[in-house]
Amino acid sequence: MDELICVADFEREAEKKLDPGVAGYFFGGACDEVTLGDNCAAWRRWRLRPRVLAGLGEWDTRAEVLGAEAAMPVLVAPVAYQRLVDPEGEIGMARAAAAAGTVMCLSTLATTRPSELAAAVPEGRRWFQLYCFRDEAVTRALMDEAVDSGFEAVVVTVDAPRGGRRERDLRTGFKIPEGLGVPSVQAALGTDRAVTIEETFALMDPALDWSDLEALASASSVPVLLKGVLTAEDAALAVEHGAAGVVVSNHGGRQLDCATATADALPEVVEAVAGGAPVFVDGGLRRGTDVAIAMALGAEAVLVGRPALWGLAVGGSDGAASVLELLRAELELALALCGCASPAELGAEHVREAPPAAVYSA
Amino acid sequence: MDELICVADFEREAEKKLDPGVAGYFFGGACDEVTLGDNCAAWRRWRLRPRVLAGLGEWDTRAEVLGAEAAMPVLVAPVAYQRLVDPEGEIGMARAAAAAGTVMCLSTLATTRPSELAAAVPEGRRWFQLYCFRDEAVTRALMDEAVDSGFEAVVVTVDAPRGGRRERDLRTGFKIPEGLGVPSVQAALGTDRAVTIEETFALMDPALDWSDLEALASASSVPVLLKGVLTAEDAALAVEHGAAGVVVSNHGGRQLDCATATADALPEVVEAVAGGAPVFVDGGLRRGTDVAIAMALGAEAVLVGRPALWGLAVGGSDGAASVLELLRAELELALALCGCASPAELGAEHVREAPPAAVYSA
Amino acid sequence: MDELICVADFEREAEKKLDPGVAGYFFGGACDEVTLGDNCAAWRRWRLRPRVLAGLGEWDTRAEVLGAEAAMPVLVAPVAYQRLVDPEGEIGMARAAAAAGTVMCLSTLATTRPSELAAAVPEGRRWFQLYCFRDEAVTRALMDEAVDSGFEAVVVTVDAPRGGRRERDLRTGFKIPEGLGVPSVQAALGTDRAVTIEETFALMDPALDWSDLEALASASSVPVLLKGVLTAEDAALAVEHGAAGVVVSNHGGRQLDCATATADALPEVVEAVAGGAPVFVDGGLRRGTDVAIAMALGAEAVLVGRPALWGLAVGGSDGAASVLELLRAELELALALCGCASPAELGAEHVREAPPAAVYSA
Amino acid sequence: MDELICVADFEREAEKKLDPGVAGYFFGGACDEVTLGDNCAAWRRWRLRPRVLAGLGEWDTRAEVLGAEAAMPVLVAPVAYQRLVDPEGEIGMARAAAAAGTVMCLSTLATTRPSELAAAVPEGRRWFQLYCFRDEAVTRALMDEAVDSGFEAVVVTVDAPRGGRRERDLRTGFKIPEGLGVPSVQAALGTDRAVTIEETFALMDPALDWSDLEALASASSVPVLLKGVLTAEDAALAVEHGAAGVVVSNHGGRQLDCATATADALPEVVEAVAGGAPVFVDGGLRRGTDVAIAMALGAEAVLVGRPALWGLAVGGSDGAASVLELLRAELELALALCGCASPAELGAEHVREAPPAAVYSA
Repeated sequence: MDELICVADFEREAEKKLDPGVAGYFFGGACDEVTLGDNCAAWRRWRLRPRVLAGLGEWDTRAEVLGAEAAMPVLVAPVAYQRLVDPEGEIGMARAAAAAGTVMCLSTLATTRPSELAAAVPEGRRWFQLYCFRDEAVTRALMDEAVDSGFEAVVVTVDAPRGGRRERDLRTGFKIPEGLGVPSVQAALGTDRAVTIEETFALMDPALDWSDLEALASASSVPVLLKGVLTAEDAALAVEHGAAGVVVSNHGGRQLDCATATADALPEVVEAVAGGAPVFVDGGLRRGTDVAIAMALGAEAVLVGRPALWGLAVGGSDGAASVLELLRAELELALALCGCASPAELGAEHVREAPPAAVYSA
Repeated sequence: MDELICVADFEREAEKKLDPGVAGYFFGGACDEVTLGDNCAAWRRWRLRPRVLAGLGEWDTRAEVLGAEAAMPVLVAPVAYQRLVDPEGEIGMARAAAAAGTVMCLSTLATTRPSELAAAVPEGRRWFQLYCFRDEAVTRALMDEAVDSGFEAVVVTVDAPRGGRRERDLRTGFKIPEGLGVPSVQAALGTDRAVTIEETFALMDPALDWSDLEALASASSVPVLLKGVLTAEDAALAVEHGAAGVVVSNHGGRQLDCATATADALPEVVEAVAGGAPVFVDGGLRRGTDVAIAMALGAEAVLVGRPALWGLAVGGSDGAASVLELLRAELELALALCGCASPAELGAEHVREAPPAAVYSA
Repeated sequence: MDELICVADFEREAEKKLDPGVAGYFFGGACDEVTLGDNCAAWRRWRLRPRVLAGLGEWDTRAEVLGAEAAMPVLVAPVAYQRLVDPEGEIGMARAAAAAGTVMCLSTLATTRPSELAAAVPEGRRWFQLYCFRDEAVTRALMDEAVDSGFEAVVVTVDAPRGGRRERDLRTGFKIPEGLGVPSVQAALGTDRAVTIEETFALMDPALDWSDLEALASASSVPVLLKGVLTAEDAALAVEHGAAGVVVSNHGGRQLDCATATADALPEVVEAVAGGAPVFVDGGLRRGTDVAIAMALGAEAVLVGRPALWGLAVGGSDGAASVLELLRAELELALALCGCASPAELGAEHVREAPPAAVYSA
Repeated sequence: MDELICVADFEREAEKKLDPGVAGYFFGGACDEVTLGDNCAAWRRWRLRPRVLAGLGEWDTRAEVLGAEAAMPVLVAPVAYQRLVDPEGEIGMARAAAAAGTVMCLSTLATTRPSELAAAVPEGRRWFQLYCFRDEAVTRALMDEAVDSGFEAVVVTVDAPRGGRRERDLRTGFKIPEGLGVPSVQAALGTDRAVTIEETFALMDPALDWSDLEALASASSVPVLLKGVLTAEDAALAVEHGAAGVVVSNHGGRQLDCATATADALPEVVEAVAGGAPVFVDGGLRRGTDVAIAMALGAEAVLVGRPALWGLAVGGSDGAASVLELLRAELELALALCGCASPAELGAEHVREAPPAAVYSA
């Protein structure tokens, strides 16, 4: 894989290697994919303000993430059905995250149960992404399995009361294969039968409100983060109702098209929580400099979904680890060139908005 | 038609199916088509600010439109000569609107009289778009027929004191076929002979002023809306002179090229009427999220012309109904993902302007 | 020529018809042609705010230009060596301007003397564009011939103390043919010999200052306008030093590349002269709506150079007249659709800046 | 070379002529080359505000640069390993700079020692670009040789505590040939052996701080400039700690991708130093008008790296001299057309920001 020198190379290889239906499912977005594209473009309207003569001979990407150390403030975002791109699926991804010294966030819709993942890759840090079900017992069972398996946090996704309109899937006709169930949900339901994604979504609770967050947060022995926040208002409410952190996310541009790009939402969220809880962000991060910009704008860490998955698709666990290491190395270089010893030193003074494009330029 | 999954698909199919002259007539705009393109682009410079944990399990696109319920705040805009794209013409369109539970606005230049339309499709809500004639008796006769046929409102179009410069027609040589008269005008004139579009325009009054609106509003037993408003000044005058509502419109980019895009004009119009009358908007709306943005900016409802016509051209009445249902479903999804139970809940807090593009982005 | 329905059509035809060297000379700009392109693009960042129900049945493009009536506020800009595109050259152009009821501004570098032009086309309004020579007697002789031949104003061009860098000419190797002299200059010098453009430029005075303008203005029995102004500062100085008007111009993008587009400079110039003198503008106007925007921004009239020359190249005098009539008709339509009876009614309230483009739009 | 009429022509020719690996090394930038492209684009968002009737018949590009005259405020930026593009390398470049009457800044990583260069081209002005080494004796030896050889200033580069990520080199596999040592460093180390670039970088001090600058400035008998400043904060610190000038630079987009374009950083740096020291700028300057804009924004002079190297690659010393003369001639023309007798007359009043691009323009 030595010819794959940046994340975009992995993207191109993954699209070549995967079945078009599978590629469309993972890499596509909602409707016209305005938000999908905007997520990437929005990081690029910021510019870094590097400082010189910082007197540093070493730079360290380690960061405190939810009170514990990670090798870098780049975590693996929850992505469903990872076995569609690699036979090891989430286990391969967890191994990559552990090798990279960072956190993997397992999806409720994973093809591997939390307990299986913990048994297979005991050495890594793990968070569990949680969809809430109409039947609270199912939700609790999912949480309990994750917490009992050493998952350190629960990340409740709240931007999907309905599934987004994924037009690539409508065009390719792609469906999740029937045999590929959702083992965590099956276990929570006490069934051996493969449960389809449609069945699973039908069981989820679209009517969650802030009291549900409060109840979850109270009931949980681990921190509960809220994922899918794009506004100052919801960020403030999240903290008020017990969230131990918020994840600025538009679900990778897969839910509401024309929703705010995460880079554009991040500043207002950081301002609204005002240090009351850590703020995470995902969406469109493809370079170490994107990560540096997110940190400068006030994120505690970022999550990357598609980049890690491209790595997994191209080279299995090693491929995913390569992508993570690439981002870490790029971030380390960005730190060095910005004059920061560690990610925590990046602040608002390290970024500025790029000036707007002129009417005409030859 | 199951491979047609978004409005743009219908557009492409319609352009394939129709004679180029007819397609140019309906889908083209004035001069360089700056405003035609800007109408679409302007919705895309807004971003939605979705809210989470709204505690809603159901979402309802129903909206109050001019004091009565519609299945959605998406109405069918007046479009002339619909028989050019489908043998049923306006009757097919009215059937589609009725099936979709929404209002159809019939053009003065329809190939079907108001009374015929009412007889053919008695079940739907109907508005009548009115051009004012030099001979007031003609104008009154048109209004009377519409009101007597159960049309709930009269929409006076005022942005066409002269016809726009449609260069696609000049290039294709397209002319409205002579045999295709304007039956509503013929009836008002008391003639059996097919009246050409040129004859009809020559009879219209290019010198209307605000007293004419006032007289029409006084004389009408149904609400009179003013269509073609793009400024705060005219919006305020409209309300002052008796308009029961204003339609922010630039005639689909077919009249004055380089006129303000309707999405850009909407905020100043909403501010100027200050709740004194409902504000409607047409032009460039192609997605449920565009509709949601218009509602958030203060519209009571939107009107769609070309999208419905594309549907009619591609699949007759069923095609038009498919387009309307598509927009309804997309709006419902946008409501769900914005955390709104109904269109009326969308407000200024649900939108933000997209940041300007940077000088350079790779 | 009935398939030529807009100015851009004439442009395309002219480029097809002319020798590439000649086309490059007339239609190219300086260096990277940033200002050449920006001149056109800058009108397009404005949007018109049309008013409705103005109570007008007739619209009239006539305008007062320097105290006398013109059929429209669109004048023919000075363009050198017009015989390169048409055997009649400036005489054909003057005939077109006269037919269009507007002013032709003859270049010092014309292939026809002022007196010849007046004799050939006595019926039209004429201005004379003047380059000032090191030998004041030459300058005075040029002015005298023009004034004696009924030219109503002298337009002193001051943006060419040095010739611009026209890279298209460097690439094509184009040179003005030696035999094509500058008869007005030859007459002023009292020579029969064809004087080359290089010789002519060498005789011009690159060191003009404001006292020279003042002297010219005092000495002239007709108004003296200053052409080539792009800043508020120079506009104020021009009025202070006796200019009867200023022409906002960057020489069609042929002199200083990256100079301000004329549409961008116009507002500050209008503000600076504060009604003390009429303001004219040229550069990039291709549509009646561009003219309307210029009027709304405070111009007394616009000048068009290349569009008229494209007409002359394509169809001789009739071709140029067609282009002028096209612009007049487009302006009349713009007036009608803006709710203005005449160009003089257009004001700042009829325009707004287009919002900036967003980071990303699909 | 008479068909090469602008800098872009030399760029194209150089890319044709050079081995792709060499071309990639010199002309590429870091990562996605956002900053590489932005450097050029950022000059183009400014527009010149030319003044007329300045009463000047002569224009002179001479400028005072660090207290002595140069034929123009365009210096040759330090570029490593120039023998890769031309057998004469830095000696050819120094000859070109001397012929152009301007300063050449020799790189520490030159293929020619300072003393050799001085001996070969005694007639030109010379600065020495300095990388600081862990072993201060090496740094001092480098400085001493330069100062003893008549170099007038030392330009300490501080934006490279780590090497940038040059992905073109990763793709082409380009390496600096082993035999091509760094003679100045070898001399300072007292070794005859060719030292590789990797060895050289390993010897450099990545942990420099402001006290190191202060020590260097105190120790130096010639002015010490700081190169690689992009922020007001560092510019102020530089002056405070003894820098005799700052060079606004992002290392030609080769170090931190997404760093601020130099044209965008220049104004804040000029404001921060507030006249306390001269400000220089490099990056993206390709035209005399770019130079004029930099001067208007407050630069004392600009440096050009790639343009001069393109000239060297295409035509050796004469080629580089042609590029420098081209820029000088373009600057002279820009001065004339701006109404300035010399570069020093250019000020903030000669520029304005170009308005932002509109949402849509046909």
